[in-house]
Amino acid sequence: MLFKNISVIDENFNVLQNKNVIIKDQIIHFVGDEIPQEMDNYSGEIINGKNKLLMPGFFNLHCHVPMTLMRGYGENLSLNRWLHEKIFPFEEYLNAQHTYNGSMLGIAEMLSFGIVSFSDMYFFSDAVAKACIDSGIKANISRSIVCFDDSDVTDLQSFWEAKILYDEFNGCEDGRIKVEMSIHAEYTSTPKVVSGLADYAKKIGAGMHIHLSETESEHQDCIARHSLTPAGYMNQCGIFDVPTIAAHCVFVDEHDMDLLAEKNVSVSHCPVSNLKLGSGVAPVSKMLEKGINVAIGTDGVASNNNTNFFEELKLAPILQKGYFHDPLLVSTTQTLQMATRNGAKAQGRQESGVLKVGNRADLIMIDLDKPHLTPAHDIISNLIYSAVPSDIVMTIVDGKVLYKNNEYLTIDIEKVKYETKKSTDEILSRINSKI
Amino acid sequence: MLFKNISVIDENFNVLQNKNVIIKDQIIHFVGDEIPQEMDNYSGEIINGKNKLLMPGFFNLHCHVPMTLMRGYGENLSLNRWLHEKIFPFEEYLNAQHTYNGSMLGIAEMLSFGIVSFSDMYFFSDAVAKACIDSGIKANISRSIVCFDDSDVTDLQSFWEAKILYDEFNGCEDGRIKVEMSIHAEYTSTPKVVSGLADYAKKIGAGMHIHLSETESEHQDCIARHSLTPAGYMNQCGIFDVPTIAAHCVFVDEHDMDLLAEKNVSVSHCPVSNLKLGSGVAPVSKMLEKGINVAIGTDGVASNNNTNFFEELKLAPILQKGYFHDPLLVSTTQTLQMATRNGAKAQGRQESGVLKVGNRADLIMIDLDKPHLTPAHDIISNLIYSAVPSDIVMTIVDGKVLYKNNEYLTIDIEKVKYETKKSTDEILSRINSKI
Repeated sequence: MLFKNISVIDENFNVLQNKNVIIKDQIIHFVGDEIPQEMDNYSGEIINGKNKLLMPGFFNLHCHVPMTLMRGYGENLSLNRWLHEKIFPFEEYLNAQHTYNGSMLGIAEMLSFGIVSFSDMYFFSDAVAKACIDSGIKANISRSIVCFDDSDVTDLQSFWEAKILYDEFNGCEDGRIKVEMSIHAEYTSTPKVVSGLADYAKKIGAGMHIHLSETESEHQDCIARHSLTPAGYMNQCGIFDVPTIAAHCVFVDEHDMDLLAEKNVSVSHCPVSNLKLGSGVAPVSKMLEKGINVAIGTDGVASNNNTNFFEELKLAPILQKGYFHDPLLVSTTQTLQMATRNGAKAQGRQESGVLKVGNRADLIMIDLDKPHLTPAHDIISNLIYSAVPSDIVMTIVDGKVLYKNNEYLTIDIEKVKYETKKSTDEILSRINSKI
Repeated sequence: MLFKNISVIDENFNVLQNKNVIIKDQIIHFVGDEIPQEMDNYSGEIINGKNKLLMPGFFNLHCHVPMTLMRGYGENLSLNRWLHEKIFPFEEYLNAQHTYNGSMLGIAEMLSFGIVSFSDMYFFSDAVAKACIDSGIKANISRSIVCFDDSDVTDLQSFWEAKILYDEFNGCEDGRIKVEMSIHAEYTSTPKVVSGLADYAKKIGAGMHIHLSETESEHQDCIARHSLTPAGYMNQCGIFDVPTIAAHCVFVDEHDMDLLAEKNVSVSHCPVSNLKLGSGVAPVSKMLEKGINVAIGTDGVASNNNTNFFEELKLAPILQKGYFHDPLLVSTTQTLQMATRNGAKAQGRQESGVLKVGNRADLIMIDLDKPHLTPAHDIISNLIYSAVPSDIVMTIVDGKVLYKNNEYLTIDIEKVKYETKKSTDEILSRINSKI
């Protein structure tokens, strides 16, 4: 696949114009000014790059993709009523088929929003994995573990599901699918289970995905329970001895941040969800200053209510500027790096997240010829602050085009919409018949 | 124009399904279940409303539309450097033709984002008015007045420009264009000029558009200078005796809010701009509680950097929830009302902003058949939290379709992009040759 005379965002996150890019199999094979001779007899696809930008795709570092079925379900309710009256009853009737359907719908949405890879935490995770395999998107999937009693981790059904998930899917599709371990959060687990899972993750070499200090009560209650912040607690249990993605981190303190930096924990910042649920504003600018690998996540669609990454890209920097009253906090380049390179790094995908020769071709193409991207004083600024989803005209994962000009190439979107409607109708009718 | 079997957002901001809507001339002529007999011989345009939503268009209550030319110009700078090194030098070379071009570009963008009317504050405002007339959008336009010396208002060139603008354009195009008076802000004017303009506005029956308590220093410096907050000061000068749109109001206190409510001042809340410039978060939920007519604005594109109203629609409520740690603040219906009905009211357009028989047809049509709007547990929630600009498939002002399926019907968009590029190139080359 040859992109001719296209603008690119290079490995230093500068915009270079009039480049030629060749993708061969899964790999970015060539980026340069002249088309190499080997292409003289090339008869494959040629993309005219005029007014187009080729760049790394987005990495959505925190998601619960099956919750796409619960988009806008229980709006304008308190967190407690929302969970107990809406989300938990809905989840009670969720089965593997519903989960697959909801995942396909969420993945379709993500591909149209330029997301090439996501990190997921939920249950029925084999259905999530299958949706990823079928659709062609990349993902780090985890079956999250919750425990309120005295069990060992190996006593838990959820642990065995996580283990089977790992054994069956980790590294499959040539590494496109990875499986991680997951503790849901401090307040939904016990030290015994957390330590047990940390030991298991260490043994098998798996990464970890957790919620950390999302709400003030979670943070304070943990201190009351363990005389440790959630970060201190997770570290003491050994979680941070494996590569960890800590979602949210709204209430982390100075010491927590030093610890996250020291232990190379990646933070998944979810600005829309943190505001919408009334949690607050994570100290992202300070985390970046401390050298923490901060990536960006949408969280589940039930608390967002979409995976439009341009919203997160814009909100992440302006929220720091506005909340801390400093318009210089978090530059456009830093933001772009969080959404791409840092996300790939957090997923253990060093071969992705940056457009350079030898890397996996996990890329998106942007149409720059739009009124709202005119004039183009600063293309990176236009991308972070002015672009909208329909500017994304192509999403490529491992060199394969999955989405192009509003069309899905691996997903029968009409079928997915039909199936998800059937799934939600079925679940709602069960809920209603119980009431 | 007949919309058949379409969902609508009615005057109570409920979603009704399977309605038939007739637009005749500028007016919403019929909304109902059965198509009236008078339509039996109708041979005009029929829109199939399947999976579509017809609703009031958005009112952008604070804008500097010619600044579209400065999109992303001077990113990642302090406010002071941005203004003095970038914006002011650029504006020095701006002429009426540039202003017209920039306005056309900004209007094109707004139409694609579902904005049917906007309130503008800038200079070369006759060029802004001409762009509104040519494009078909509605607008309340003002030539803002700045004064640092001992002049009377009638000594000012800008006052005469405002007067001529009013005399020439107010009420033209059957009321589509209105002209307001404008004091830029307390810190850029004198009590003499503010009072003088208030008197003039009272005399001619014009509305007023001002910046109010946008930054903390503006708010505090005003108190130091006048022993009054900006709201108290503007009120003392008589500004609030005419219908006023006060943009920003980030730092208004309890007394200010009571005053704004008492004097029926409309507030234009600009959440993206307030964050991006490092100003802060306006107490919108409290203002709504106090019965203030709060509308929504994008501010100029130089500090936003687009007019994507879905961003403002989503950020307005979630920012209140997150900043004040209460997920119940600002409901989806309140948000929708701010963006439509409240904006129309603030512009003195009581005949618009709500979809009901007899009102002006200032409407947008949304395509609901999108992955990111599926499932549809709650259409209003999907609209506020999940929709993206490309879901808007039609923008209608005064019964005339201005934008439909990515096409502009009154704007030659290729010409506008070409002309704005020429304008910015010209200005930049003058700036560079001066340096």
